[in-house]
Order: sequence, then C-alpha cells, then structure tokens
Amino acid sequence: MTDVSRCPPLTRQSVVEAHARIRPYIHRTPVATCETINQVASTPQAERCPHTGPNTAAEPAPHEHGVTGDAAGCIARPRVKLFFKCENQQRIGAFKARGAFHALGRLIEQDGLDNVKRKGVVTHSSGNHAQALALAAKTHGIPAHIVMPTISTPSKIAGTKSHGADVIFSGSTSVERGAVVAEVMGKTGATLVPPYDHPDIILGQGTQALELEEQVEGLLEVEPGLGVPGRKRLDAVIAPIGGGGMLSGICTALLGTGIRVFGAEPRFEGADDAEEGLRQGKRVESVKTLTIADGLRTPVGEIPWSIISDKEKLAGIYSVTEEQIKAALRLAMERAKLFIEPSAAVPLAVVLYNEEFRKLVEQEAGEEGWNVGIILSGGNTTMEAIAKLFEVPTKAAERAEGKVTVDGDRIAENVAG
Amino acid sequence: MTDVSRCPPLTRQSVVEAHARIRPYIHRTPVATCETINQVASTPQAERCPHTGPNTAAEPAPHEHGVTGDAAGCIARPRVKLFFKCENQQRIGAFKARGAFHALGRLIEQDGLDNVKRKGVVTHSSGNHAQALALAAKTHGIPAHIVMPTISTPSKIAGTKSHGADVIFSGSTSVERGAVVAEVMGKTGATLVPPYDHPDIILGQGTQALELEEQVEGLLEVEPGLGVPGRKRLDAVIAPIGGGGMLSGICTALLGTGIRVFGAEPRFEGADDAEEGLRQGKRVESVKTLTIADGLRTPVGEIPWSIISDKEKLAGIYSVTEEQIKAALRLAMERAKLFIEPSAAVPLAVVLYNEEFRKLVEQEAGEEGWNVGIILSGGNTTMEAIAKLFEVPTKAAERAEGKVTVDGDRIAENVAG
Repeated sequence: MTDVSRCPPLTRQSVVEAHARIRPYIHRTPVATCETINQVASTPQAERCPHTGPNTAAEPAPHEHGVTGDAAGCIARPRVKLFFKCENQQRIGAFKARGAFHALGRLIEQDGLDNVKRKGVVTHSSGNHAQALALAAKTHGIPAHIVMPTISTPSKIAGTKSHGADVIFSGSTSVERGAVVAEVMGKTGATLVPPYDHPDIILGQGTQALELEEQVEGLLEVEPGLGVPGRKRLDAVIAPIGGGGMLSGICTALLGTGIRVFGAEPRFEGADDAEEGLRQGKRVESVKTLTIADGLRTPVGEIPWSIISDKEKLAGIYSVTEEQIKAALRLAMERAKLFIEPSAAVPLAVVLYNEEFRKLVEQEAGEEGWNVGIILSGGNTTMEAIAKLFEVPTKAAERAEGKVTVDGDRIAENVAG
Repeated sequence: MTDVSRCPPLTRQSVVEAHARIRPYIHRTPVATCETINQVASTPQAERCPHTGPNTAAEPAPHEHGVTGDAAGCIARPRVKLFFKCENQQRIGAFKARGAFHALGRLIEQDGLDNVKRKGVVTHSSGNHAQALALAAKTHGIPAHIVMPTISTPSKIAGTKSHGADVIFSGSTSVERGAVVAEVMGKTGATLVPPYDHPDIILGQGTQALELEEQVEGLLEVEPGLGVPGRKRLDAVIAPIGGGGMLSGICTALLGTGIRVFGAEPRFEGADDAEEGLRQGKRVESVKTLTIADGLRTPVGEIPWSIISDKEKLAGIYSVTEEQIKAALRLAMERAKLFIEPSAAVPLAVVLYNEEFRKLVEQEAGEEGWNVGIILSGGNTTMEAIAKLFEVPTKAAERAEGKVTVDGDRIAENVAG
C-alpha cells in the first residue's frame, strides 16, 4: 500500500482529487426520498401508529426512553427531510468500491502498473471490501488475494470469487487472519490494501459525500418541496461507523461546508465502541460482537479515530439496538422500496429511534427542521438472511408442533377450505 | 364510473392526454439498469453458474426445457439489455395509482366534483388498486368504500385504511365481493371504479409506457453503452398480466411505435389464463389459483382481452413457474437491489427462464440484440412474506427436531464454539 507519509493530506481538496481519480470506475449512485419515512421520522415515537414499527406482536416496540433516563421519553419532534444516498446501488453493491479503486489507483501511480501486476495485492475482509478490491484489481489486470473468515456470508464469498480473486480462508479473529495475510505476502510479495485504516481508502470513501451534497442541491433547485422550508442544501449527514474509513472520509469531505456529520452504530454486545471511545476520550481497540449489522463489527481504526475524535470534524455518534435496526430495515424496504443490508439501516434507525439524537435535532433545527443525508452503505444481503431475521417466531413453534405445514399454511384451514 | 360510450378512444393520443391529466398526482418513476442481470439474461440457461439461480440445495434449478419439448433445451442465447421501469416506487408502491387517478379525474370532469363528493366511490380489490383508489379519493376529498377479501395481506389492508378509506370485508370469490359492492352502492349511491376492465383505467395504466420509452431514449443518448450496440431506443416491453388493465394500456400506448409488447404471467394452477385464451382464441373467464404472484390471480377482463387478443397490438404472452418467479425475485433484490413484490418479478422471470421467449428473441433480435423494457409493477410486500418464501426448509425441519435454535444457529456449533 502507498506509504502513509507520501499520501495526500486529509483535506476536502484531496477528496475532490480522489473523486476525479475514481470517477471512471464507479457509479454516481442515485439519491432517493420517501415522504412516508419523512412523516414517521418527524412524528414523536410515542404518537406513531403501530404500522411504522415492527408489525408482529412477537417483536417489541423499537422505541425506548432517551439514554438520559428521561421518564417521559419518546416525545422529541425533530422535523426532518431525508435524502438517501443509495450506495447499495454502487458497484459490488456497496460504497467500498470507492476506497478500493482509489487505493489501487494511487498504488499504480506510485509503483507503476507493471510492478503492481507482478506483485499483486492482498487484503482481509469478511465482505464488501473483499469484493471491492477483487473488482478493482480485475479491472486493472492485477492478481488479488483475499483472506476471508470461513464464516463469511456465502454470497459475499461467491461475489469475491466471481471477480476472479484468489480467496483464502482463515479464522475470524484478527490474529488468525493477520497470520494468513502475512503468509500470502511472504509467498507472493503482494501489497496489503487494508479495508479502512489508510488515507487513500479514507479519501476514496469520502467521495460519496461530495456527490450527495451536490445531488441534494440539484434536487432542491428543481423541487424545493423535497426539503424543509427555506433551505436549499443539506444541514447534516449521518453515516454508519465500523472501522471508520467511510465516516472519517465524509468528515474530511465536508469540513468547512457547515454540514454537520454524525456517526451511527449498533449497540449490541459493545458494538458501540466509537461512542464509548468518545466518552472515554480513548479509542476502544477491540470489539467482539455478533450484531446483525455485520459490516460494523470492527473497532475504529487509528487514522479514522484521529479524525472522528476531533469535535471540529464530527458532531457526534449515536447507537441503536438490534430491534431498532430491524425496524429501520423494514421501513427502508417496505416503504421506500430500497433493498439494503442491515448495516445500512443503522443511520436511519438513529434518526427514527434514538431519542437523544432526535432531541438534539429538535433543539438545533427548531421549527424549520433539517435536510438530513443518510448514507445507505450497501445492499449485500440474501433472501435467506432476511428470512432468518423476519421469520414469524410463532410459525416456527407451531410447525415444530405439527400445526402448520412447511409452507406456513394452517393445516386446519386447509382441511376446512 | 364514466360511461364507457363516452370514454376517449383507446389510442396512443388518448394515453398522452391521460398522462397530462394525472401528471400532477403521480411520480415519474426512475428507470434502473443492472449489468449483472443483463449478463445472466444473455447467457444460455445451461451455461449459467449456480449463483444466478436459487442458491439453496433444496430449491430446484429454475430453468427447464422449452415447452416445445426440445430435449436439448436451455441453450437459447438472446442478447438483451434490460431497462427496469420502477413502478414499485410509484405512489402507494404500485402502478395502480396511475389508473385510479385517471379514472377519478375523468369522473370528476363528467359529473362535477360536488356530485362525486356527495356520492363517493367504491371498488373491490385485494390490494394495490384498493390503496390507489383510496389515495386518489383522499386527494380530491371524496369518500371511498373499498371491499377487500378478508384474506388480503395485512399490510395492504393497513395501507388502504391509512388513506382514510372505509374498508369493508367480503369473501374472496367474485360472487361474494360483488354482493358486498352492490350493497354499498345501494346504500350510498357510490360510483364503482373497477380495477381494470374500463377504458379510463386502461388509458391511465398505459402512461408508464410513454415515460419508459422517453426515459430509455434519454439514457441511451447520454450513455449508449447501457443499450445494445447501434440501437437508440427500446425494441420491446414486457409487462405482467392479471386483469390486463396495464398490459392493454401499454399495447395502446405503444401501438405504431414499432416497440413490441409482450405479456408475462404465472403458470401455477391455471394462472396462465391469458396464454391459454390466446391458444383457444377465446377469453378464459374464470381462474382459481394461489400463485405467489398474488396480483396476477384474476382472469383477463373483457376490454383488455379485446386489445391483447389483437396480434397487431400484442406480440405474445409467456408464462413461468413459481420457482422461476422466486429466482427472478431473488435476482432483482440481491443483484439489482430493487425491492419488488412477486407479481413484479414475473416479466423478468420470462426473460431469464422461458426458453420459448428466449428463442424468439434470439431469432428476431439476432447478433445485435434487443433493448427490453421490464415493468416492475409494484413493491407492496412485507418482510414476513419474503421470510415465508425464502426460509431454508432444512432449518425448519431441523428446528422441529430440536437440532437448531429459533435463531437458526446450530446448537452443536454453539456448544463447540
């Protein structure tokens, strides 16, 4: 990978240059809006109709009292208009294509294409970065070795292989995969392209913020009613944080624009390491969680941490429960018709259900409200994964007792019908 | 409803006028493309990698030999570039908003808003037409009475009620619901707005074809590589057929343009009534099927039949199996990230899996290939419905035997891990 000391500075201008570098290889993904979700988000949780949350009796209501312990919770009334940046429609189905194409482009500029082709590249990733590097490498005719945990989603393994990459399996701890990566590097001389903790990756991921900013201004010029009254641009952007490559890239891209940047993460089993790190004033270095937001199970990297822990650059991080992620995922799919992976639903879940965030928006945005950009980071999930998340539990139990068929039809009804 | 004898003639010009009438009330839905699906569709079924079909061992391969009985089947190599008209992102989540707004607009023009407000409107529908008429009526301040079968999808009932309509339940046969509709008309004087068998509905539904035609030309002007070499416009459009309101509207809109129109329907339990009707030269008047494409369970209406049975207007109808619909639904969601309902996956299933259709395209389009517009008719389904369709059957069976937990984790692995 390009030597960090020779990388461009982490500035908005460098993101602009990164965008010019990768533009031929990536999609300018669309920006979507959904009036129904705007209305739900702008209604206090306590007043919402039951159809805007999980609609099976078995699932608990996703809202909860503010983390401040406010007993009268769930009453914040932020006014928001949401703009969804559809990186689920990016190449390989996730924003990671941006960082991979940028990092590889910079490596080629520095070492020359022939050298990079001879040595190849290597990375470790359980999913989207693996596919992204495989695609970028194939595009330039460079061999790619991808170390993936054996427990990776089969569709992500298949996607990585479909781009011609050499997939090598490892255990899922960082020590296990590090050993396999070192072995590949020793054998082939391949250059490591890390998934998030590198300036070239960060600058590449930041490019989506430039597009989003410009696209929202374009939309509001044509149709002002899509936004809050009197505002012609974004007021805030909220993005998921796992390793932090994307969030720190977005902070870098938007610094000085007046657009606030927020991070969103799952809370399950300590996945809220970034929020916890900010509280402690110190990066949390390891995380062990099986949150359904599988792209966000990693601790924040060192370089991303140096950016997001700067209050000038990041306005705050908020976390949500697994049920809240599922409820946001449901709304994005059923109402906005956007097919996304659970990690991509986390920022929407914060906007809909995190009472602390909602109070902040209500206070800062006031009567007028905010135009909020929401990064839908990816769409790489499978029908089976969705089936597992949303199966009606009572059906499974009844089936075990022989009361329903495997198709879920009630046997008694079939007899009667 | 407007007297049929006073309706505009069923011509392209009438569709253009219908479009002008409804434009303020509907979305101009986007057109999406997906290179991966283009590649799959342009590869013979026999040569496809297993990941482009159902990827669980329990599901049979969706391809099959041509209905001509050709033993060497599955070898057609049509070359196609697909353009998806995203009516799943239309208001109320389906194209039906077009017909409902048009029919109501015409009724108001004829009878005057005050009269229509006083009498109200009534319809019977298990789903999308119900929501569409409810929304259109609410928009004009008109009372709407919607007769829905008790077995309707709960989300569709909730959607209809959320637009302020008066929902009345009935049995699911046409006799049962007809009786309830008659009762409502007798009590209130409400005017019936039928779901498909009326010129005003047909003209409204046809408007999507005008947009698609224009949008594809616009896309190809900017990015010719999205289409087949040397072609600057659509060669064909394929749309689902249930009652036939949409398909006959599209035939009407595109007559004389040189763009061929095809229909697509499920085959399960005689749902292929339109194809069968064309074979017999006679409309099939009743259908009783529980195909997963629940929007396409109805027989073709009389006026739609008079249009689609005209070879000058419709180029053909092709049907697919339930497994083929599921496989197409999977590809649309997992690869193109488009959230659609099963009925909307039927045309894509024909393009991917109906060997007879694929041979026809190979022969007629030749080396160059065709640009094919695909109508994604709606996106009104739920996470639970998807879960039911795609649950891994072995998991359910194992769960019944106590080998896995309700979360689907293998108990043995949990112990070992």
